[in-house]
Amino acid sequence: MSASLGPYLRLRALQRVPTRTRTAPRLPCRRAYAGSNRLPKFKKLPEPPRGPWAPKTRIVVGLVFIGTLVYSMLTDEPSKLDGASMAEKDSLAVRESGITSNSPMRLRMEAFIKEQQKEIVRELEKVDGKKFRVDTWTRPNGGGGISQVLQDGNVFEKAGVNISVVYGTLPRAAIEKMRVNHKAMDPGVNSLDFYAAGLSMVLHPKNPMAPTVHLNYRYFETTNEDGTQNTWWFGGGTDLTPCYLFDEDAVHFHKTIKDACDTHDKAYYPRFKKWCDDYFNNKHRGERRGVGGIFFDDLDESEKDQENTFAFIQGCLKAFLPSYLPIINKRKDMPFTEHEKQWQQIRRGRYVEFNLVHDRGTAFGLNTPSARVESILMSLPLSASWRYMHEPEKGSREQRLVDVLREPVDWVS
Amino acid sequence: MSASLGPYLRLRALQRVPTRTRTAPRLPCRRAYAGSNRLPKFKKLPEPPRGPWAPKTRIVVGLVFIGTLVYSMLTDEPSKLDGASMAEKDSLAVRESGITSNSPMRLRMEAFIKEQQKEIVRELEKVDGKKFRVDTWTRPNGGGGISQVLQDGNVFEKAGVNISVVYGTLPRAAIEKMRVNHKAMDPGVNSLDFYAAGLSMVLHPKNPMAPTVHLNYRYFETTNEDGTQNTWWFGGGTDLTPCYLFDEDAVHFHKTIKDACDTHDKAYYPRFKKWCDDYFNNKHRGERRGVGGIFFDDLDESEKDQENTFAFIQGCLKAFLPSYLPIINKRKDMPFTEHEKQWQQIRRGRYVEFNLVHDRGTAFGLNTPSARVESILMSLPLSASWRYMHEPEKGSREQRLVDVLREPVDWVS
Repeated sequence: MSASLGPYLRLRALQRVPTRTRTAPRLPCRRAYAGSNRLPKFKKLPEPPRGPWAPKTRIVVGLVFIGTLVYSMLTDEPSKLDGASMAEKDSLAVRESGITSNSPMRLRMEAFIKEQQKEIVRELEKVDGKKFRVDTWTRPNGGGGISQVLQDGNVFEKAGVNISVVYGTLPRAAIEKMRVNHKAMDPGVNSLDFYAAGLSMVLHPKNPMAPTVHLNYRYFETTNEDGTQNTWWFGGGTDLTPCYLFDEDAVHFHKTIKDACDTHDKAYYPRFKKWCDDYFNNKHRGERRGVGGIFFDDLDESEKDQENTFAFIQGCLKAFLPSYLPIINKRKDMPFTEHEKQWQQIRRGRYVEFNLVHDRGTAFGLNTPSARVESILMSLPLSASWRYMHEPEKGSREQRLVDVLREPVDWVS
Repeated sequence: MSASLGPYLRLRALQRVPTRTRTAPRLPCRRAYAGSNRLPKFKKLPEPPRGPWAPKTRIVVGLVFIGTLVYSMLTDEPSKLDGASMAEKDSLAVRESGITSNSPMRLRMEAFIKEQQKEIVRELEKVDGKKFRVDTWTRPNGGGGISQVLQDGNVFEKAGVNISVVYGTLPRAAIEKMRVNHKAMDPGVNSLDFYAAGLSMVLHPKNPMAPTVHLNYRYFETTNEDGTQNTWWFGGGTDLTPCYLFDEDAVHFHKTIKDACDTHDKAYYPRFKKWCDDYFNNKHRGERRGVGGIFFDDLDESEKDQENTFAFIQGCLKAFLPSYLPIINKRKDMPFTEHEKQWQQIRRGRYVEFNLVHDRGTAFGLNTPSARVESILMSLPLSASWRYMHEPEKGSREQRLVDVLREPVDWVS
């Protein structure tokens, strides 16, 4: 991720206090709690025609499902296009024709990540045996999020699978920074409407033999004043963080991702693997966060057309379950010692260090007034430890892990 | 602390790989471990005359005791004044006449914090019953540090009392930032030699009824090319972080500090109390870190003369044991439940959040190449926890604490 663009591209579910819009009455945020998968109820609006996606996207009707605002630099005003906001137009389009392969990418990405969130949560619930808690929230001016979190599970200490959709306006300063990577942006305008949607996930298993995994895929788009698309890009990645290294797990994880990448472009995997090693780097420790995976950003028309890149993103996200389920199933019930549990806690501490010290999205999110902190910090483990001057024994499995974190390995050369 | 100056003023013990100097052979870092309070042995140098401080300052002979470099903006070159570095001059002065009330403030502050470190550690060992581990390190070009840490004690989960002394050179960019608060600095020079010395302490007790306490006092000085003093200032503070609030503890802590302040200037306590509430603020949570104390920076000649300010700093540091010992002795053996221990772990998580997200010195230190990370992160608790959407019960003691963290109280009005 380029330093300048990073903050804008990380999707973080930040709940803002609802603000009054010119088109809709002020509504409170609603939440549905554990065990309930119902979406918030609002004043009844005309029933939309039922397309193939209708059941999943019904919440976008009227208010569009919602609202998280990513950054303080982004204004909180509803965006206006010819008198109607982008959110309203999208809402109308869904009401009129549902979501099809001809719908704008915004709606297709949104539908895709919602579908994936459901599928991933369903499969993880099968692994764990316990249910995820569901928190859904909305904002009147468009956008929203669904956080699904499983805590104190049988297999997972803490697991979060979140989606969020944001409609907002980029101020001039943000546009100037983004132009570095997206020349199509007009430097002369004072603001641009934008849309962002993404799925973020972090799973921390209880068993120290089972690795933590992180994943995030996102789509970003800006719109000209006349409502036409100005620029778009995709970003994201996934990485694996073991406490005890099983080479076969790292190989399987990387191989599954590489296969997903290779289908689209043979150059992607090596390029995005290196990007991942460079980004998830606890520089102050001289250690990578884990054994890596892939990471990329700013995949726009200078790279490939939108359909191809969306297909690539879909391939990556669909590769998640096959990349991780075999690993968690193999490790979740392995025996472990108190010593191994303590080492896991120390590694958890390093995870916290990366997320709070180096991760640009987290830092930016936390410094944003009225952020939904609980969704941002869902990524932190249930517990972590810091022991002064702790060093693994020479020749131990703990030392082997640290050696690999210091010198990333090419798992599928 | 002013935003621009903050990073330069926070003393953090960062160990750099020893670098070759023009005046001394390259020496490895030496460490003395747990139970041993001996200072590192170096090649024997001429015995210094024994002044009242001689035994404590003998390590400054030759190499001066140690080396920590605070920030990446500070160059790692030994500073040169008329052919001899400030460190060498100080070393020579100590050899010739020991440290007296006529010695430069550098040497007096250094001797004072060393003496205080010993006294505080001695008293804390009495409270805990276990000994602190001692890590001492040096750098050939002057400066050094002594970290004393007690982990897994009877009373303290983790307790660190560190001192560090730094000789270095400020580059132009740093000088320009510092000039905002210190007009005496010449904006025309390309570099200035500087000296910094301080004592930093964080104590995390095991018992959730016993509060965490933090303290840091530091002295900073820059020198002109001809070796004369250019500018100087003191900074520091102390704050208390309970998990369960006992009003009498907060009152006692604040009252002891206020008394120390009032002896020097009646305006200090209210001013520095507010500064503390403003600085130790987990903005993203809308909560202060704890019940406060005092915090200040840039106390220079525009405020009071050097002797008066040193006396004030001495008063504050000497007030530490009376401010905290009665509290820890009263709380360390109180009964507590598993629920209360868990709440402590959640509050520890907030402490980690402040230190890693908001504390400027920590962030700057961790982003400095080759920093002594273990000394910087000594401030983190042995363990911490993050529970999704955890909220205290209404009317509970936990809620009472959070209410006070949201609206700081005037404990000794």
